[in-house]
Amino acid sequence: MNLILLEDRDFISPDRVRLQDDRCRHIIRVLRAKPGDTLVCGRKNAKMGTGLIVSIDRQSIEMQIRLDQDPPPPLPLTLVLALPRPKMLKRILQSLASLGVKEIFLVNSRRVEKSFWDSGVLSESNIQRHLDLGLCQAKDTLVPRVHLKRFFSPFVKEELPELSRNKKRILAHPKAQSFCPVGLNSDTVLVIGPEGGFIDLEVQTLVDNGFEPMTMGARILRVETAVTALVSRLFT
Amino acid sequence: MNLILLEDRDFISPDRVRLQDDRCRHIIRVLRAKPGDTLVCGRKNAKMGTGLIVSIDRQSIEMQIRLDQDPPPPLPLTLVLALPRPKMLKRILQSLASLGVKEIFLVNSRRVEKSFWDSGVLSESNIQRHLDLGLCQAKDTLVPRVHLKRFFSPFVKEELPELSRNKKRILAHPKAQSFCPVGLNSDTVLVIGPEGGFIDLEVQTLVDNGFEPMTMGARILRVETAVTALVSRLFT
Repeated sequence: MNLILLEDRDFISPDRVRLQDDRCRHIIRVLRAKPGDTLVCGRKNAKMGTGLIVSIDRQSIEMQIRLDQDPPPPLPLTLVLALPRPKMLKRILQSLASLGVKEIFLVNSRRVEKSFWDSGVLSESNIQRHLDLGLCQAKDTLVPRVHLKRFFSPFVKEELPELSRNKKRILAHPKAQSFCPVGLNSDTVLVIGPEGGFIDLEVQTLVDNGFEPMTMGARILRVETAVTALVSRLFT
Repeated sequence: MNLILLEDRDFISPDRVRLQDDRCRHIIRVLRAKPGDTLVCGRKNAKMGTGLIVSIDRQSIEMQIRLDQDPPPPLPLTLVLALPRPKMLKRILQSLASLGVKEIFLVNSRRVEKSFWDSGVLSESNIQRHLDLGLCQAKDTLVPRVHLKRFFSPFVKEELPELSRNKKRILAHPKAQSFCPVGLNSDTVLVIGPEGGFIDLEVQTLVDNGFEPMTMGARILRVETAVTALVSRLFT
């Protein structure tokens, strides 16, 4: 944990917090911090700075908080991702949060197993937990928004055109002819399919809505690897 | 499995293989292939092509093999990586194999837990298994070489200079001043530290041996994410 992420409810006065949960245990057991130590802190969707430990006991920690730095800038990216296997989704949410992605749409596809939509990982609290881990890792406070879209066709035809207006529209597709650009660094909507890829009809629907299929080369990557590889090379 | 990876011992004649293990079960149960079907195949450290299924029974599959394509080109990269946590190492080995990295040195560092070196994941057969998964994923046949280096200082001072002669030498370091190049695409040795980073003395030893500390920006990534992100942006 490279940053202690503070919630509004942690504040007992404008510049003082009391922590009593996992973060408290982490600070005591892993960081082995003591009164007088200073930790990197940040308030959710607000500024970052430091927390001076005022008191520690077994159940709680109080810190004097000073927040005067902006979090790192968000990536100008909207990611549309076919819902991955739950176990992989946890890691992907962490990675995306740590990479600075702020808009994430998880969508259905023919090759997404129906049972994935019933997974507990998709509960609001679980999604939040994995995003928080990514933010604490990367030292960021701006919480990504995750949207669940169980119906591919209405989403792509009715919502995606508005979401992608005036933005570069890329469909990651191993068999495409065009190569994915490097260091694009401008407003982009990136669509990534499931393991095994979108079916032809889905690809066509995306193409009809202005998405250009692009490849990273001959190698077919697991979704988890592809997500990080694509984000990392689009925004440099 | 996007490619069936064939071992020399699978060949019962120059152009025919018999498979009796997990690959056989995968072909029957997951791919649901039948006699007459053609699968993408490749021979370890040799060419790729197709396998025509000649016969299937519960215990074995025979295929007529035709190998006439070169595997995708390897990346011109030597990766030196502080030994990660075993669970993460499995996924990293798969990712590296799928990304086309062929020379991997796993090294010690002060912040590597000693117990990691005793993990079963480091057995030759387990390392091979995870590399194979990456190759099958990416459609590649060239097996990466993994070298275990339990002593940081002798490795960096005595072996690394020869390994990195005439190559670009990069030390991934979140706190560095220089930015990591994009699309370098030339002979490179990339060093990545453990979670929490190399200690100052280790950084200095690497700098003394010609490695330049470089950052990807303010965000601190997990090793697993950093490895993919760095490889993906260095080689485009």
